[in-house]
Amino acid sequence: MDYQKILEEIHQEVLPLVDKGKVADYIPELANVDRNKFGIYLLTLDDNAYAVGDVLEKFSIQSISKVFMLALTISHLGEKVYDRVDVEPSGDPFNSLVQLEHESGIPRNPFINSGALVITDMMISSFADPRAEFLEYVRDLVGQADVFCNKKVAASEKEHGFKNAAMVNLMKSFGNIENDVDEVLDLYFEFCSIEMTCSELARAFRVFANHGRGVIDTKKYITESQFKRITAIMQTCGFYDEAGEFAFRVGLPGKSGVGGGIAAILPDKYSIVTWSPGLNKKGNSLAGMKALELFTTKTGTSIF
Amino acid sequence: MDYQKILEEIHQEVLPLVDKGKVADYIPELANVDRNKFGIYLLTLDDNAYAVGDVLEKFSIQSISKVFMLALTISHLGEKVYDRVDVEPSGDPFNSLVQLEHESGIPRNPFINSGALVITDMMISSFADPRAEFLEYVRDLVGQADVFCNKKVAASEKEHGFKNAAMVNLMKSFGNIENDVDEVLDLYFEFCSIEMTCSELARAFRVFANHGRGVIDTKKYITESQFKRITAIMQTCGFYDEAGEFAFRVGLPGKSGVGGGIAAILPDKYSIVTWSPGLNKKGNSLAGMKALELFTTKTGTSIF
Amino acid sequence: MDYQKILEEIHQEVLPLVDKGKVADYIPELANVDRNKFGIYLLTLDDNAYAVGDVLEKFSIQSISKVFMLALTISHLGEKVYDRVDVEPSGDPFNSLVQLEHESGIPRNPFINSGALVITDMMISSFADPRAEFLEYVRDLVGQADVFCNKKVAASEKEHGFKNAAMVNLMKSFGNIENDVDEVLDLYFEFCSIEMTCSELARAFRVFANHGRGVIDTKKYITESQFKRITAIMQTCGFYDEAGEFAFRVGLPGKSGVGGGIAAILPDKYSIVTWSPGLNKKGNSLAGMKALELFTTKTGTSIF
Amino acid sequence: MDYQKILEEIHQEVLPLVDKGKVADYIPELANVDRNKFGIYLLTLDDNAYAVGDVLEKFSIQSISKVFMLALTISHLGEKVYDRVDVEPSGDPFNSLVQLEHESGIPRNPFINSGALVITDMMISSFADPRAEFLEYVRDLVGQADVFCNKKVAASEKEHGFKNAAMVNLMKSFGNIENDVDEVLDLYFEFCSIEMTCSELARAFRVFANHGRGVIDTKKYITESQFKRITAIMQTCGFYDEAGEFAFRVGLPGKSGVGGGIAAILPDKYSIVTWSPGLNKKGNSLAGMKALELFTTKTGTSIF
Repeated sequence: MDYQKILEEIHQEVLPLVDKGKVADYIPELANVDRNKFGIYLLTLDDNAYAVGDVLEKFSIQSISKVFMLALTISHLGEKVYDRVDVEPSGDPFNSLVQLEHESGIPRNPFINSGALVITDMMISSFADPRAEFLEYVRDLVGQADVFCNKKVAASEKEHGFKNAAMVNLMKSFGNIENDVDEVLDLYFEFCSIEMTCSELARAFRVFANHGRGVIDTKKYITESQFKRITAIMQTCGFYDEAGEFAFRVGLPGKSGVGGGIAAILPDKYSIVTWSPGLNKKGNSLAGMKALELFTTKTGTSIF
Repeated sequence: MDYQKILEEIHQEVLPLVDKGKVADYIPELANVDRNKFGIYLLTLDDNAYAVGDVLEKFSIQSISKVFMLALTISHLGEKVYDRVDVEPSGDPFNSLVQLEHESGIPRNPFINSGALVITDMMISSFADPRAEFLEYVRDLVGQADVFCNKKVAASEKEHGFKNAAMVNLMKSFGNIENDVDEVLDLYFEFCSIEMTCSELARAFRVFANHGRGVIDTKKYITESQFKRITAIMQTCGFYDEAGEFAFRVGLPGKSGVGGGIAAILPDKYSIVTWSPGLNKKGNSLAGMKALELFTTKTGTSIF
Repeated sequence: MDYQKILEEIHQEVLPLVDKGKVADYIPELANVDRNKFGIYLLTLDDNAYAVGDVLEKFSIQSISKVFMLALTISHLGEKVYDRVDVEPSGDPFNSLVQLEHESGIPRNPFINSGALVITDMMISSFADPRAEFLEYVRDLVGQADVFCNKKVAASEKEHGFKNAAMVNLMKSFGNIENDVDEVLDLYFEFCSIEMTCSELARAFRVFANHGRGVIDTKKYITESQFKRITAIMQTCGFYDEAGEFAFRVGLPGKSGVGGGIAAILPDKYSIVTWSPGLNKKGNSLAGMKALELFTTKTGTSIF
Repeated sequence: MDYQKILEEIHQEVLPLVDKGKVADYIPELANVDRNKFGIYLLTLDDNAYAVGDVLEKFSIQSISKVFMLALTISHLGEKVYDRVDVEPSGDPFNSLVQLEHESGIPRNPFINSGALVITDMMISSFADPRAEFLEYVRDLVGQADVFCNKKVAASEKEHGFKNAAMVNLMKSFGNIENDVDEVLDLYFEFCSIEMTCSELARAFRVFANHGRGVIDTKKYITESQFKRITAIMQTCGFYDEAGEFAFRVGLPGKSGVGGGIAAILPDKYSIVTWSPGLNKKGNSLAGMKALELFTTKTGTSIF
């Protein structure tokens, strides 16, 4: 199949959507991103790459980071992670407190904010230097060293992150946060502020498409069972309150972020990453989602 | 792969679980089912069948019926079905009214009770004789004529179905039910009371595994897009509040019922049906779920 | 104090408000009421009456009827009534199902719809002819025989009463309704459809102001303890989600209805009834509430 | 009436209840209070005092402090206080986040924790030294200078106050908190940690019974309208989720605290304070509530 031609067709078809979405504006650092940016990067397990658009430009990966956080933590702590965070879709806006209160401080899954905050808390309890270990882990997945957090973004998130602070306090009141509230928040916001290119994200997610084994370094990052678990959570919980719509339209496990990125995988075949800062009403990249839908339709590839 | 041998191994392995679950007891007709019943039926697209246990005994398919209801309705009405019922996981027990009230009478998806009640209402509005057309549709999918509703079960469901009555009244108060409340409930309970064997269910679901085309009659029951939609909903919403757990442990789209049945598919490969009346805490068959987990693990087949 | 003069002043002051509210329009029988109607009727325990406006015209008392339903039922069944309905304010719109589901089918108090539906169910279980006994009870309280239900209003309420049907079904699913759902609904809607004049309502409520003893017939309708209980519930739950505002602005126990009536009492002193069909956003009569506020302010009488 | 004899009778009657309640144990400072303590202090507007038990011992007044916070703030800012906090009963446990999220960060009333946190925030914004002004205000109401906060209690509350921290963060996310979250929490916990005797509380609340005018210093602390508002809020919201029960059994406006104190008033007549650390399931003093019920029954005094 001529993947490059397909990506170029898709680029033309989604161009009219690129400025239709709404760029996240709760912090100035995200609000100021040029919403005309657009890129798709496809990376296959047999090591071919195809790309269109702004694929070498860094952007804030935001919630996509939650996949790396979970993978690193589960590779250290194993299944006991799921004693403190469930694995079911939330059926509520991604940062709702109602369900958290109703379910005694146990978040529905690790890909909503509350769940990722609990994962962050586990990392502080378990790792000597969680900040350094996380960065090193992501750099290993990518296969290069120049991946960094954006301290300005993290600081700005903290300054506006009162709903996240509410959640971590609420969970602490239920005994599901072990460490200092501010320490958890600071680290969480740093993890979210990491910046990567489409190309880098595709390399990192290709490891998941390869069942957790690095394609270049052949390192086993997660076990087969952990791969299955993470893929299942991406499939059912990776797109805020639009997991069902994404499963239908795209049909790939993945994760989106409010920075406009979406990373998805077809196990055993490829990873694919799109970036377009304009979001739809549910908080997922408008043009990115359309591009992925066109891709799986045109190539006839999806998990179903 | 020696599927028959694998099924027999699984049978031995899950036997200790068969009497550990709790048989549904909200109506006497379900409460009186022998909880030692157990069967697995595997049917491939290249038309081989493998079976162990009580696969030729009829049981109440209950919520599995919702897949047939959706397929029939969407094949007539198309995408406009989704104006009145959403396609996202619910994140709440399957019959909660809270979310329904919060979302103005629009159910989260067609596989929770409220959603299937709306589908039933659409069928009444659109079909001359929805009861007959539904039975005929299911019989066509199965490929034989002796599939029936159990009137006694339906009557008993009606007698105890006050929560369903509450939901349909609530939705009617929001304008999302067009027909008479009792007419909707009566028909819905009949649809749920349909009785099938593992073998029959496997034949019906094989049509979905074959992208909506009958393997024997080669009839196109639903379009490719409708197949994708139904499969995505089975994947994200098919197992009450355990969709994430099922996606991880089993990794197949499917649907369960409180009668103890589970029907699942691997698109392009096979359909598989288990029956074991003992349920786990979330309302899914305890031994059936374990059997399916063992099957996808032993065969290395799953959508991921 | 020159009560007549005060009422006339109030009449002038609230006239500009009379056409500002919104007449209840969920059934045509209420929607068609002339919203320029206005009346105040004051009746003292030393048997003086003062009135302005349309005080001899019948109107639909709607939820005010709930006070009579509770009084009659509690006088027969005593405190055990409160095993099936609580006595606390609801803090939610008057017909919400959320709290009802959360609290296992026990309504918050007898003056919200769900609570009055449970009271109706008790009446069916306890009385030979609840319909007749209720009418006779209200007629006794008023001291005359021409008080009737409006069958057309009751039928219209039933036809649009799906939210009430949802509630009674939900409560039945929790075991808190003993009788047939439709029988409960029919009777409830009849009770709500009763029509009275300001004058008649004032006579009935004067019995409550007199601690449950008829001023003319000297009959003891409820015990001192039952008087205290009903008055407390009127005080904390009588005005939908505006009990606090009413307590501040008016400072009298009472009950309002969507027909635009408000009946209130100052124990040991008087009963007072207003009628003005235009409602505020919370469902209470706009001009009626203002009139009562002016009355307690001008006369310096309130429970505080 | 021989009030002293009545108080002594009550003392005997409630003694068996004194050790039946459960002392608040979420912080050690409250958990360690002797639960056999008991006192009643009655203070009339014609300046007679009657007392039994431990009425001169300081205890942590906790939520009773919210009345003083509201009175001081409303006397400075007037009605605009109610733009940021509603005046209706909550119908939910006193510290629930659900309603707060549902109502966009506007607390239901100033006597639940979230409401008092907003009041604290207003005090920080409006007063040069809110801590000093508050203490001075309470000392003025009492008429003596030795009223203090207990810094150890305040620190302990802060250490365990994650649910309060969650609420203030949530409200800040909605824009309903102007100041630094920690500053608000620190001050709030200090306000709650104030210690007074039954005698002192009775003197302070007598000012409210006297419509806001000091009986000794004749100073006007709040306007007549503010008196009416505060009294109405005490009546409908003063007893967590037991306002209706208290209105029925006792029939006085008032406020309780988890330290076991209850302060209540009969406007124009008296203030009365009880202290008994054992709480009932709803968080109100078990023996204190019974003592007040006996008092209003024996004396025939209540607002109804």
